[in-house]
Amino acid sequence: MEPVYVIGSGMTKFGVLKESLIKLAEEAAVGAIVDSQTAELRFDRIIVGSQNPDEFSGIGHLSTMLADRLGIVPCGGTRVETGPSSGSSAFEVGFSLISSGLSDVTLVVGVEKMCDVERGTASKILSRMMSYQCETRYGGTPAALAALVARRYMHDYGLTRDELSLVPVKAHRNGSKNPLAHFQKETTVEKVSNSKVVASPLTLFDCSPTSDGSAAVVLASRQVVQELGLLDSSAQVIGIGHATDYHAVQHRLSLTSLNATVEASQAAFDMAGIGPTAIDVCELHDAFSILEIINMEDIGIADRGKAMDLIRNGLTELGGPVSVNPTGGLKARGHPTGATGVAQIRDAFLQLRGDAPQDLQVDEPEIALTHNIGGFGNNIVVTILRRP
Amino acid sequence: MEPVYVIGSGMTKFGVLKESLIKLAEEAAVGAIVDSQTAELRFDRIIVGSQNPDEFSGIGHLSTMLADRLGIVPCGGTRVETGPSSGSSAFEVGFSLISSGLSDVTLVVGVEKMCDVERGTASKILSRMMSYQCETRYGGTPAALAALVARRYMHDYGLTRDELSLVPVKAHRNGSKNPLAHFQKETTVEKVSNSKVVASPLTLFDCSPTSDGSAAVVLASRQVVQELGLLDSSAQVIGIGHATDYHAVQHRLSLTSLNATVEASQAAFDMAGIGPTAIDVCELHDAFSILEIINMEDIGIADRGKAMDLIRNGLTELGGPVSVNPTGGLKARGHPTGATGVAQIRDAFLQLRGDAPQDLQVDEPEIALTHNIGGFGNNIVVTILRRP
Repeated sequence: MEPVYVIGSGMTKFGVLKESLIKLAEEAAVGAIVDSQTAELRFDRIIVGSQNPDEFSGIGHLSTMLADRLGIVPCGGTRVETGPSSGSSAFEVGFSLISSGLSDVTLVVGVEKMCDVERGTASKILSRMMSYQCETRYGGTPAALAALVARRYMHDYGLTRDELSLVPVKAHRNGSKNPLAHFQKETTVEKVSNSKVVASPLTLFDCSPTSDGSAAVVLASRQVVQELGLLDSSAQVIGIGHATDYHAVQHRLSLTSLNATVEASQAAFDMAGIGPTAIDVCELHDAFSILEIINMEDIGIADRGKAMDLIRNGLTELGGPVSVNPTGGLKARGHPTGATGVAQIRDAFLQLRGDAPQDLQVDEPEIALTHNIGGFGNNIVVTILRRP
Repeated sequence: MEPVYVIGSGMTKFGVLKESLIKLAEEAAVGAIVDSQTAELRFDRIIVGSQNPDEFSGIGHLSTMLADRLGIVPCGGTRVETGPSSGSSAFEVGFSLISSGLSDVTLVVGVEKMCDVERGTASKILSRMMSYQCETRYGGTPAALAALVARRYMHDYGLTRDELSLVPVKAHRNGSKNPLAHFQKETTVEKVSNSKVVASPLTLFDCSPTSDGSAAVVLASRQVVQELGLLDSSAQVIGIGHATDYHAVQHRLSLTSLNATVEASQAAFDMAGIGPTAIDVCELHDAFSILEIINMEDIGIADRGKAMDLIRNGLTELGGPVSVNPTGGLKARGHPTGATGVAQIRDAFLQLRGDAPQDLQVDEPEIALTHNIGGFGNNIVVTILRRP
């Protein structure tokens, strides 16, 4: 397999923003082009990960519109959609285009503009990614499914409400130091446990927000990286895994494990030739607090039922053996769905390059992993990067 | 670049159909799996090309839903959207996944279900792929843009209304022999020239219909093809080109040429190491009759301003030096947008394998080309296949 490198990245602030979908994508893309010193190169492809640009912003054919606005015509444009994993799926497509030889330099942009529509409308648009027959028509929502998972995990492994609150507390602590995060304010176990219930036992602070934002990375072949003299400041993509699960949660074998994570992370590890103990820093899809726990166990960072031990003992904090969501995760960084996967990869890339935000930089990490969920575990992409 | 093969295909009838989006996609996919003898293999990836499943059918996360319904979980699922070129863009992604080594067997499905919504709604949904600032807000539609192109071509090259009618007449003649075509009825120059004007000089018969339908192909690596013993009945993908153009037609240098076609076909020819004279059979994106003429010239099948000479002299008919749209093209086969690109590739594949519909089979073609447009020339994908 021909090697592929991340050579630069850009990102907007995440949050409730006034800029348009296109403006956000432009800002992240231009940031990535400048950061990767590729402004004078000819891009072969632009891949845009975005879940619902038509519905949220009334914009179709987003990839070619962006190619136009960025002045990179006739660069081939493609939009990729896999629900909230659209960003990492776009990255996978970018990887395969470079590795296959179809492209030498590809721009991958993740973007979502969710806060222009009324709150109820956003939920309605997003609910289309779930099973209508088994979930939506009975009032099922992502938060309701996460609540089922949390209940079952509490039953099986004795997790308490206050223990679970440690996850958002860590996320907010990290987010408070991330200048691009949606939430930059610390919180406490008391606040998380006692805030408004969204779906019992989950409260408002267990749930990632609805956000606007965009992130972008530039991918290149080894030859381009060498020509640009960027081998020392790039990160190699050494593993990609991608798996699905049955669409309706009730058709799955377990509530406390997402099998697509197990499959995707195993595939990524196999490709990289490493195991979970090699991970120094990771960005996991904590759309709901309980998912950070489940994800750690499915990936193999923690034994089954034991993830809470690591969190309770601070082992997933900055400076611990494995830093989990050092830039705030979906909970604090925010969750503009199509942008999230690319933002995770950008944050991992900056960690490996030593350019993470001040106070959030892990000490010389070698291996970074990202994990991005589409639907409620319907689709999962795991990516592993290695520092130069 | 690692070789990639098309080893099987499936397709539904195109037309105004009662089956749901999912049902259509299932039918085409199962057809392709059976045809490729891969029912017992483990698919790595499913790539779905579909333009607007959320808006037309209220379905999100289509790729994982299909993986579920086809029983191929945990196969990684991705939806690709590039307007009406979504099908060939999905094929490009499938190609790169196999060629990069990320996948050994990939199922590519193109599908669109457009006829469930009211006529005005469909146009409104599709118009999002155009430039709002420069086109849609002034009442611009794809047909209006095609009319501008036709007018200009008539002015520049002396094309007459009745000559232009020869294009739909050929499409309908071929479609009348294609059991899966939307329209299976011949027409005449008189009928085309004198039917209802959609956007002068174009009439109803110059425009492809709004259709439902799905097509699918199975892609595999050389190793899998050899293991299945299918080398003699597969087609190798020897060229792929993909290019964009400025979003608004008024920003382009020419009205009578789509530069993205020039760029994409040149890239595909470069990759294949052949030129336009090598093409035995091709499926071109004739969403409007004038486009078949423009496309032939942009690809290099005809000299600039001379495509009509080939058509008038029957040289693009079955049995001529290059058969153009032998299965009816978008005009007669129909145009369920996301399905079209995959249907073109399927039809090209069947020609190379010698399995085209009776009376439509070209005599032992070696090289087939497909050409698929997204937006009004915003995005173009050209694919070249070679018989075993």
